[in-house]
Amino acid sequence: MSTLLPSLHGQPEALPTDSRAVKRCDQLGAHPFSDTQDGLFRAYLSDAYKATCTQVAQWMHEAGMTSRMDAAGNLIGRYEGQTPGAPALLIGSHLDSVRNAGRYDGMLGVMLGIEVVAHFAAQGLRLPFALEVIGFGDEEGSRFPTSMLTSRAVAGTLDALPLDTVDANGTTLRDVLHSNGLDPARYLEAAYKPQQVLAYMEAHIEQGPVLEAANMGVGVVTAIAAQYRFKVSMQGVAGHAGTMPMSLRKDALAAAAQAIAAIERIGASGPEDLVATVGQLCVGPGASNVVPGQATFSLDIRAGTAQVRDKAAAEICAALHTIAQQRGITLALERQNDLPPTPCDPDLTERLATSVARVTGHTARRLVSGAGHDAMVMAALTPVCMVFIRCKEGISHNPAEAVRHDDAQQALLVMLDFIRTLAASPAQEPTEFSA
Amino acid sequence: MSTLLPSLHGQPEALPTDSRAVKRCDQLGAHPFSDTQDGLFRAYLSDAYKATCTQVAQWMHEAGMTSRMDAAGNLIGRYEGQTPGAPALLIGSHLDSVRNAGRYDGMLGVMLGIEVVAHFAAQGLRLPFALEVIGFGDEEGSRFPTSMLTSRAVAGTLDALPLDTVDANGTTLRDVLHSNGLDPARYLEAAYKPQQVLAYMEAHIEQGPVLEAANMGVGVVTAIAAQYRFKVSMQGVAGHAGTMPMSLRKDALAAAAQAIAAIERIGASGPEDLVATVGQLCVGPGASNVVPGQATFSLDIRAGTAQVRDKAAAEICAALHTIAQQRGITLALERQNDLPPTPCDPDLTERLATSVARVTGHTARRLVSGAGHDAMVMAALTPVCMVFIRCKEGISHNPAEAVRHDDAQQALLVMLDFIRTLAASPAQEPTEFSA
Repeated sequence: MSTLLPSLHGQPEALPTDSRAVKRCDQLGAHPFSDTQDGLFRAYLSDAYKATCTQVAQWMHEAGMTSRMDAAGNLIGRYEGQTPGAPALLIGSHLDSVRNAGRYDGMLGVMLGIEVVAHFAAQGLRLPFALEVIGFGDEEGSRFPTSMLTSRAVAGTLDALPLDTVDANGTTLRDVLHSNGLDPARYLEAAYKPQQVLAYMEAHIEQGPVLEAANMGVGVVTAIAAQYRFKVSMQGVAGHAGTMPMSLRKDALAAAAQAIAAIERIGASGPEDLVATVGQLCVGPGASNVVPGQATFSLDIRAGTAQVRDKAAAEICAALHTIAQQRGITLALERQNDLPPTPCDPDLTERLATSVARVTGHTARRLVSGAGHDAMVMAALTPVCMVFIRCKEGISHNPAEAVRHDDAQQALLVMLDFIRTLAASPAQEPTEFSA
Repeated sequence: MSTLLPSLHGQPEALPTDSRAVKRCDQLGAHPFSDTQDGLFRAYLSDAYKATCTQVAQWMHEAGMTSRMDAAGNLIGRYEGQTPGAPALLIGSHLDSVRNAGRYDGMLGVMLGIEVVAHFAAQGLRLPFALEVIGFGDEEGSRFPTSMLTSRAVAGTLDALPLDTVDANGTTLRDVLHSNGLDPARYLEAAYKPQQVLAYMEAHIEQGPVLEAANMGVGVVTAIAAQYRFKVSMQGVAGHAGTMPMSLRKDALAAAAQAIAAIERIGASGPEDLVATVGQLCVGPGASNVVPGQATFSLDIRAGTAQVRDKAAAEICAALHTIAQQRGITLALERQNDLPPTPCDPDLTERLATSVARVTGHTARRLVSGAGHDAMVMAALTPVCMVFIRCKEGISHNPAEAVRHDDAQQALLVMLDFIRTLAASPAQEPTEFSA
């Protein structure tokens, strides 16, 4: 079986239904590409990371690229355009993984980038821009308590390096860099100049169930969500579960339960990209025969825009205050996290959607990414766009993570179509097209 | 200042407003009567327990009683009636305490029993029955995982002794008994024969806020509550808090929150003695950025009658099933505890209420005890009745436990009036009055 791709030159191109990108992710899912014998764990600059870079670099070469490890330990392959040294369209994602990871989170985007280049190279086609495939070293915070360290280095948003931060073995980032032949003093030289770069495109598994529910293999990301995280504390009065009448109670857990119901209601009443979650809850004193005097819970609010998030947060806070007041409970709200949204570039996103419609025959499903990605960081450097790939039941960060081969091939077709279209009709301002 | 008590002989009796019983509880609240240097902890048959028995026995003697330690380690004082060996009205509560205890839980009832005897003895008054003051050794499960061990021995409901059960130091009950000069083989000889006993009366702090809210110093217990304890598990589907849309979630904590609201509503909609409590709740996986897939919580339901309890339990279970079904959540309900109610003897309770009205000038506040007491066990042996004494803010099992002296004196007046009335007009069947 094969899938037909109308080429810019009028010659349909054929892709097998089996995805080599998916197969390569599977191959990279175990020793020596994992730091653990059971399951997958690939930490930044670990032995498994180095073995992975060696293998991926070989695939980059086979696809027609040169490759290098940059000053931050990222693996970068380059396929020159019609003019050597032309600005590059970056196609990337991350090589590192969480513990007990799935095989596609991050890696699939890198493998698809290689497939893109392999495809053009096989046709002997040079574009008006270079293509670079970036495998980022630290997206997950896989080794140090510093997520997205290496994309921040590339984007030029890293002011200083936390060289004294230590991994689980107590080894500093400084020592890890040295033992990998990387000079801490030159780490920030990984930064690109804006004029070297055309745009950044990332393909990534959705890590959620929206595309599966919509029966779509791929989708287009409109933004990476704005996020608030609160710690909510409710203080009532503990009492004996047998001797404290219902009418005299100030039950902190009952108050929290009412609050959680309000949070769910407000979260569900907004646009689809609004989510509000209570994921942690602690009850004090926490005995079956004691009316709870204390309830503390987390509150995570995300939306595609700060406006939607902030409106929901305001409604939730008002509801919590009302509940606390009505029950005579003391409420404390502490904001622990405030991440602004990262909108994807409107022009590139529109082009991606057009490519999706062309490849799939259906209007593209647009969705907000509730999870963070390297694209979020790269947006500080250059316009970004993202393709999401359906994953089974939305499961991620779990060995059960699964991707269909035909979905990955569909994503590849979309990326190829997008790039051809971009080559034929360059992006609008503010994207610069010539060096 | 003094309080007047009309005696049976027409001579008003005077009680000081200061309560010696309360003062003695305070005296017993610290070393050497506590096993801990900070706060009060008195474990069954510990050094502090023995020191306490020595002191309390001395007060019993001063009050005109003989004293003995029974085969189960209870301290029992006896004040003979008009006929030596006559059946006894038992007045008791417990000497042991929880860790970091208040000073009045249990002990105040024993001290008031001594005051009762001291009062009659000071008048040279012998009653048609004996008075015995019992300080029970193990009500709280203060040393072994076996609460009410010693009242069960006295009531004759203990079939076998868990001799191999160990305390926090790994010492067996067998060894503890031996080192206290008690013979494990004779432990069950602590049992009274029904014909030796007239009734059992217990005075105890309320450990709840009902009397304080009613502005009453004392109250009359109508029953010790029936109790159910359930473990409730709700299984949903865990998901990423950013990528799982509200409409696709099966959030176990949101389901639990709705359940807790239903439990509170049903608990509050019944009679005053019905209480329903969720005191423990665990959320899995329990991260702020993960939609909860699992919520497990305790459910404690109590009421003065099994009927009220069971009706509420049925309503709650039905509500939980509906919530689970509507949300596509798997529900598991496991009943872990089923304690029947212990009604206090209606005749004795009526007499106590009459005494309360006589002493206070107000209709007695009747209430169900939601907490367990030795009276619950003793009811298997003999008719029981209970006086509750107001405690500050309902706080108990806490160093902040507090009792007003005038409330303790009011309880003493009630007990004296009750006993005089009982002497003048013996109780009805099934109580036997002569040996």
